[in-house]
Amino acid sequence: MPAPADFGQFIDDHADEFIKRLASAVAIQSVSSDPSRRDDVVKMAHWLEAQLQSYGVTTVLRDLGTHVEDGHELPLPPALLGSIGSDPSKKTVLIYGHFDVQPANKSDGWSTEPFELTEEQDGRLVGRGSTDDKGPILGWLNTLQYHFETKKELPVNIKFCFEGMEESGSIGLDALVIKEGQPGGWFEGVDCVCISDNYWLNTRTPVITYGLRGVSYYKIDITGPARDLHSGVFGGTIHEPMTDLVLLMSKLVDVKGKILVPGVYDMVTSADADEREIYERLDSSIAEIEEAAGGKIALSDSKVDVLMGRMRNPSLSLHGIEGAFYGGGAKTVIPAKVGGKFSLRLVPPMTPENITPLVTKYLEEEFAKLGSKNTLNVEFLHGGRPWVADMNHWNYEAAKEATRQIYQVEPDMTREGGSIPITLTFADTLGCSVVLLPMGRGDDGAHSTNEKLDKSNFLQGSKLLGTYLYELADVKK
Amino acid sequence: MPAPADFGQFIDDHADEFIKRLASAVAIQSVSSDPSRRDDVVKMAHWLEAQLQSYGVTTVLRDLGTHVEDGHELPLPPALLGSIGSDPSKKTVLIYGHFDVQPANKSDGWSTEPFELTEEQDGRLVGRGSTDDKGPILGWLNTLQYHFETKKELPVNIKFCFEGMEESGSIGLDALVIKEGQPGGWFEGVDCVCISDNYWLNTRTPVITYGLRGVSYYKIDITGPARDLHSGVFGGTIHEPMTDLVLLMSKLVDVKGKILVPGVYDMVTSADADEREIYERLDSSIAEIEEAAGGKIALSDSKVDVLMGRMRNPSLSLHGIEGAFYGGGAKTVIPAKVGGKFSLRLVPPMTPENITPLVTKYLEEEFAKLGSKNTLNVEFLHGGRPWVADMNHWNYEAAKEATRQIYQVEPDMTREGGSIPITLTFADTLGCSVVLLPMGRGDDGAHSTNEKLDKSNFLQGSKLLGTYLYELADVKK
Repeated sequence: MPAPADFGQFIDDHADEFIKRLASAVAIQSVSSDPSRRDDVVKMAHWLEAQLQSYGVTTVLRDLGTHVEDGHELPLPPALLGSIGSDPSKKTVLIYGHFDVQPANKSDGWSTEPFELTEEQDGRLVGRGSTDDKGPILGWLNTLQYHFETKKELPVNIKFCFEGMEESGSIGLDALVIKEGQPGGWFEGVDCVCISDNYWLNTRTPVITYGLRGVSYYKIDITGPARDLHSGVFGGTIHEPMTDLVLLMSKLVDVKGKILVPGVYDMVTSADADEREIYERLDSSIAEIEEAAGGKIALSDSKVDVLMGRMRNPSLSLHGIEGAFYGGGAKTVIPAKVGGKFSLRLVPPMTPENITPLVTKYLEEEFAKLGSKNTLNVEFLHGGRPWVADMNHWNYEAAKEATRQIYQVEPDMTREGGSIPITLTFADTLGCSVVLLPMGRGDDGAHSTNEKLDKSNFLQGSKLLGTYLYELADVKK
Repeated sequence: MPAPADFGQFIDDHADEFIKRLASAVAIQSVSSDPSRRDDVVKMAHWLEAQLQSYGVTTVLRDLGTHVEDGHELPLPPALLGSIGSDPSKKTVLIYGHFDVQPANKSDGWSTEPFELTEEQDGRLVGRGSTDDKGPILGWLNTLQYHFETKKELPVNIKFCFEGMEESGSIGLDALVIKEGQPGGWFEGVDCVCISDNYWLNTRTPVITYGLRGVSYYKIDITGPARDLHSGVFGGTIHEPMTDLVLLMSKLVDVKGKILVPGVYDMVTSADADEREIYERLDSSIAEIEEAAGGKIALSDSKVDVLMGRMRNPSLSLHGIEGAFYGGGAKTVIPAKVGGKFSLRLVPPMTPENITPLVTKYLEEEFAKLGSKNTLNVEFLHGGRPWVADMNHWNYEAAKEATRQIYQVEPDMTREGGSIPITLTFADTLGCSVVLLPMGRGDDGAHSTNEKLDKSNFLQGSKLLGTYLYELADVKK
């Protein structure tokens, strides 16, 4: 069944009201990384709970306990769970979003006050949280409001899971999802999940995202002297840890981005013509990618290879060195202990668990070949598994059909190069399809100054999310 | 002519008085790097001037102008020039020392108050500046006092040059030395120079130093993106500056400390058996060098090779990277601009001027081979030439004979791995022999916590400096 004929018009007619509501949400400075703003994150949870309740959603605030920040124990903001509809003949969709935001100060370079939503002449709604992730959450509220005010029944049962710590590592949420996913829990009976918390590839074409790379982060420690030494006195007399570290780091990845750790590429199938066709179809270009990077430095002249480099191939980046001289000027130090930081982005079937032994073994072998008297220690710092969903699942077919109806185009089917760990938690815990259905554009600047959501994306995105619910109801399981 | 028979006894008899004077000097917190202590550096100049005048030395304080520190213009402490004796039939020796010290706070880990000279039971005189360089300066004062109180004529004419900015780059001193070295200047007629501002190799054997390595310091900048990027989004799509930089830095030096820049070793003669014999004779060992480094990490099992590695061979040290991630934890950044810092220690005939083209050409060629789309810039940050004196010059013969008389051993003839730039200024400007005749031991900890000068080194060192003057008078030009 398509969305009701008057749904789109309702959204357009209420545009000013919806933007005002977004301004109210943006005005609450729910910065989760700033302990002095913790009360605002809690306030945001209550604001959102009241909104849900006003449209008939049953809600509960789940206490997630405390965490330690800068040596102080702080209560975590509660997670907000909601539920509307319990018709066993309908599908049940779980909707996730987060109501906390990144920090923002006008002095960082904002053109406007970051917590005062400003509508610019070109329709940009500028403000912290406008696109990440208050706009998408409000897209769902707009849809709820339509059904409440027009007294229409929702086509599916909906469970909501909104958190206030996403920008600070989603502390406590994994445990909550696992608990509520058990029989008798809040998420029992969920058939599929929808997350609107990422972005289009560009500024033109809507996107549905079906994959995320994982990550595995390492530190290579080389130790030798007991303390930092003077290069005048000791240069030429001892094995210098920096020399060993730079030699080891140079063996990890070549200038073209090829990972040199043996066995890594054995895990990854190469793309066949059909798969390359997926990337060929994406509405993107080398020029756009280089513009985003700010330099003509793409690894290939092939759009397909560069997009696959981001989305479906592993990569290895060298981030820096802890313990070496990093300041300005010219310090003649031989650092005693240096820790080289690097990480791999993972694609299935790579996992931190199966990659770490390869990385460690390779580094230990290469270090042994060097013949240094210094000491090596390879440390795994953190990791997350990659995720790829079946892009032909009915959950995706619903999202695709909704996109066609609202935007009159086929969506770009993308995988993201980075990670959104909660996606994996939902997929693994609930054992169902998760679709990432973004509202904003690739230039929204989610974590930057002048974060914005275009008015058209807010309104069309609201229609998209509502229409997705109708297509969900309609699609064959 | 040997020193007068009662000279040594005079020094021993006045030990308590001399140590009290050293305590008075240490008590003046003449930290040149701390603008809030600048008045104490000036006070120290006046204290020392009064001491010199009390023994008949003609003095003058030379204004060196101002310098900018942390954005504030500060007056430089004056240089203190002195002169005693003008007998044209005598040789004239220029004595250099510095009356400023390194910073020190008890909280840095000192066992005692750093600016209260503390005599420990084993004879260690612990206090900031005790060995670097107030003790040696007071060694000269002790000698002057002997001659003044016993009404004996000095065997040579002496010019003094004491500065208060040595620990902060000797700002202004080069210009002063050049000016005073001209006809009619304070240093006209100087025949040789003696500097007591370095240390024995160990705790046992007196040292005379005849060489210093130079230095040439570089930064390799690699730039690519316009701003730091997220490795999830851009890893695998662009040329990463860190990858290029680490590859380039890995081509500078191998794990055994061998410099890989072509042409460097063509400049350096290899040591013949006679020269190796010099290092074989030095009272040092691999064990002592490794103890000083705090790890069993010597580049060779050959004492001669390790000592030559410090003293007579060039070396290359990698110091660190500016612009990369250097903190704790795991930041998934692709740094946009990284600057690798490294330096070469130089031996004759290497100079920053003849080495820099080799370094730059090599790095540019290796970077071109990489085939990266990023941009390379090699910057020379600073340098200083190496220095090696004729260790058989009469100035050195006088120092050796004085050492034999006071310590009853042949001195270790050493070259230092680091640099003391003022040595070169004196050698070049005055065109005469400079000898480095240290007072303190290798474990004095000049720039560390618990800096000390052993009482025996203070007293025997005072005798050594006085005896050197008599041997100077005696030795054939």
